[in-house]
Amino acid sequence: MANEKKLVEAITSMEDDFAQWYTDVVKKAELMGYSSVKGCMIFKPAGYAIWENIQKELDRRFKETGVENVYMPMFIPESLLEREKDHVEGFAPEVAWVTMGGLNKLQERLCVRPTSETLFCDFYKDEIQSYRDLPKIYNQWCSVVRWEKETRPFLRSREFLWQEGHTAHATAEEAEERTQQMLNVYADFCEEVLAIPVVRGRKTDKEKFAGAEATYTIEALMHDGKALQSGTSHNFGDGFAKAFGIQYTDRDNKLKYVHQTSWGMTTRLIGAVIMVHGDNSGLVLPPMIAPVQVEVVPIMQKKEGVLEKSYEIRSMLSNFRVKVDDSDKSPGWKRSEQEMRGIPLRVEIGPKDIEANQAIIARRDTGEKITVSIDELTETVAQLLETMQKEMLERARTHRDAHTSVALNYEEFKTAVEEKPGFIKAMWCGNQECEDKIKEETTATSRCMPFHQEQLSDVCVCCGKPAKTMVYWGKAY
Amino acid sequence: MANEKKLVEAITSMEDDFAQWYTDVVKKAELMGYSSVKGCMIFKPAGYAIWENIQKELDRRFKETGVENVYMPMFIPESLLEREKDHVEGFAPEVAWVTMGGLNKLQERLCVRPTSETLFCDFYKDEIQSYRDLPKIYNQWCSVVRWEKETRPFLRSREFLWQEGHTAHATAEEAEERTQQMLNVYADFCEEVLAIPVVRGRKTDKEKFAGAEATYTIEALMHDGKALQSGTSHNFGDGFAKAFGIQYTDRDNKLKYVHQTSWGMTTRLIGAVIMVHGDNSGLVLPPMIAPVQVEVVPIMQKKEGVLEKSYEIRSMLSNFRVKVDDSDKSPGWKRSEQEMRGIPLRVEIGPKDIEANQAIIARRDTGEKITVSIDELTETVAQLLETMQKEMLERARTHRDAHTSVALNYEEFKTAVEEKPGFIKAMWCGNQECEDKIKEETTATSRCMPFHQEQLSDVCVCCGKPAKTMVYWGKAY
Repeated sequence: MANEKKLVEAITSMEDDFAQWYTDVVKKAELMGYSSVKGCMIFKPAGYAIWENIQKELDRRFKETGVENVYMPMFIPESLLEREKDHVEGFAPEVAWVTMGGLNKLQERLCVRPTSETLFCDFYKDEIQSYRDLPKIYNQWCSVVRWEKETRPFLRSREFLWQEGHTAHATAEEAEERTQQMLNVYADFCEEVLAIPVVRGRKTDKEKFAGAEATYTIEALMHDGKALQSGTSHNFGDGFAKAFGIQYTDRDNKLKYVHQTSWGMTTRLIGAVIMVHGDNSGLVLPPMIAPVQVEVVPIMQKKEGVLEKSYEIRSMLSNFRVKVDDSDKSPGWKRSEQEMRGIPLRVEIGPKDIEANQAIIARRDTGEKITVSIDELTETVAQLLETMQKEMLERARTHRDAHTSVALNYEEFKTAVEEKPGFIKAMWCGNQECEDKIKEETTATSRCMPFHQEQLSDVCVCCGKPAKTMVYWGKAY
Repeated sequence: MANEKKLVEAITSMEDDFAQWYTDVVKKAELMGYSSVKGCMIFKPAGYAIWENIQKELDRRFKETGVENVYMPMFIPESLLEREKDHVEGFAPEVAWVTMGGLNKLQERLCVRPTSETLFCDFYKDEIQSYRDLPKIYNQWCSVVRWEKETRPFLRSREFLWQEGHTAHATAEEAEERTQQMLNVYADFCEEVLAIPVVRGRKTDKEKFAGAEATYTIEALMHDGKALQSGTSHNFGDGFAKAFGIQYTDRDNKLKYVHQTSWGMTTRLIGAVIMVHGDNSGLVLPPMIAPVQVEVVPIMQKKEGVLEKSYEIRSMLSNFRVKVDDSDKSPGWKRSEQEMRGIPLRVEIGPKDIEANQAIIARRDTGEKITVSIDELTETVAQLLETMQKEMLERARTHRDAHTSVALNYEEFKTAVEEKPGFIKAMWCGNQECEDKIKEETTATSRCMPFHQEQLSDVCVCCGKPAKTMVYWGKAY
């Protein structure tokens, strides 16, 4: 019974130790495993299936905006990585280098891509000649490598899965429009699909992407009050185009540089789902990305007719992702497993239910149990999944709002960091010195300058000089 | 008009130079591009979209047989790769080695996976304890690296995309069953989806996978008479399990080794589609995997109502993958482009057609043109796509059969290799010396020992000693 124990053993409660709770959930819901390659993780079926559902829905939304998928090599020659000054400074210290091919030393080192701006630029320089070749709206799904020192499952690992979009446009306006469009695709996806509310905004210069003119971000708040950057979209202007010589002949017959963007989302989203929705019984998955949406648990399954009825219910519910747990574990174990794995609905059916032509549905998020007639089961399941998806977002938003405070001066700011885990809204003068000071003294970082600005006061929360912008601050993963 | 010329320039005819024809098609249909990383290719949108369709359909078929997807790290520590003797001998000479992480030299070299048997074994050794943990039927979609010296687009490149299935079973029988089951999934997929007929069989010991007890293969015949190994499925017996210590406690409370399989298909399938179906006008795509199945070409599109009608037709055909070419190129260019890209059906609509409530459909494979009433367009398109899919398979099978000869003695064999490009069926004694001799003297290799055996004669085609089995031989890619 080794398998069963593993799942039902109590996990650390999130109030006692959030980090340990997270690790427990990740392991006991069998989302990932450690590998013998330090800092690299194994996506087990339950973890990878969530990623597949994220991919499917995100890819569909991309394609609706005209995105085409491509695949670039995983290697970048050192000379190519070095072409754009800021970019190489940002990434060179944390890449893995291939120096041998087969039995021979390579003439030039190749890094395993940490991101593929340089490869796309090298490609676009040949592909783009005329205004007729624009825009290019390309994306790839792949894995990237960053040689991180500290790693945590899904949140930070040496290899992770992501998508990276790379576009080239004729004008600065069009590039800016695409940068914001993709940020909004990300934000809508998080809210509508992952049930995670996000703040949309712009990164400060200190926090922006290496080589970008502007980085936009969506920031989500985890259950412990820490922020998680959940997706970014960068406008490169013509900086990369100049470094790589990507020019096109415009309608007026003049040679012009293209304007570029890139944008990415990663498997870290799985970490966000865990930390926003999970509870002390384990994972809670939003129905839209749950690999199994409904689990049927037969009660007294050895009694005649119970398993048959369970399979019949599975057929009735075939429009959903449904599974029958017909293993020889006890119903109690099965319930705990279903809860640990975050399966949205559990349908229990036993001899007495069959007699009464009914079943019991339990909601994973609220624990609520409802007895329904079998005749209304399909409709009720559809309604409950929809309600659950909606209420999970509402609860997360309520939590986020309850954990967002305002600081008008530095004392309030420091108190908030100490005593109210969450976002802190505060005004900022725009100088990096204040940003550095706040980070050093409080460990809170600027998360973003939200698009939706509020005039909280006239002065910087740190130095007291005239304020330029409101910033969301917070401790971050 | 640089864009247009590029596509409509004549390509080398396949009768003149098949290799050059292939390269021309790959480039002019814009399937791939060369990258600045030697031996690594770029999948452009038209090429990657074919792979996406292959993935979607193959993944669906996998899951129907109980396969679950996972994702393993892309790196393998050198000591792990070395654990199984035959395996490391097969792969070590052709892997890329990572020796630096960030600014530091690694304590142990990591190779970029050429295949992931060792990683799965290392994982299974911890995951599998009891008979209740079996079977494991896992698969991953990823890219792998093999440091090849000679490369050709899709057929052989240093990095390629594939899926690799890795399973673990309680018994030898179950492993053998899974090995054959997956080979049949591959074969059915090739025939039903890619319209490519294949020979199913077993590899000789000389040609089997490094570390396998038995390798099964599907072999397809290209238009030039060369064979292409299109998918393989390996039974490892308990060899890897013993090397890695993968044991489970069985129902009888005894510790036993698991039995394992692996199976893979790659982006080389795109090369097979090109070389089986293409013609001197370019690519011909089977409807089931064509990224665009129907292209609408407006005639005299500046005339009032023509573009509107084209879009209306697109809406009518929205159950298919349909596109309107409303660019300012001439209808002639558009036709050539549609042919080069292998789009199965072209629907032409001009002012006169609109007046007559009709459109003209052209089939890419036969060139046949049909005038149909707009009212019957949807139904006709559905029928034509189905017919085309079926007839493409039939034509490929006819070609394959016409290029399969029988050799009863070594003279006949040598003549066949010289004069009849294609498969040669001939008897074999089972000794590797004959296989080596045939390869050395004729360049033909044993493709497989087909499941469907015929008793062509009693003696080996090479040495004249008693024959054990019939073999398909051929020159191969």
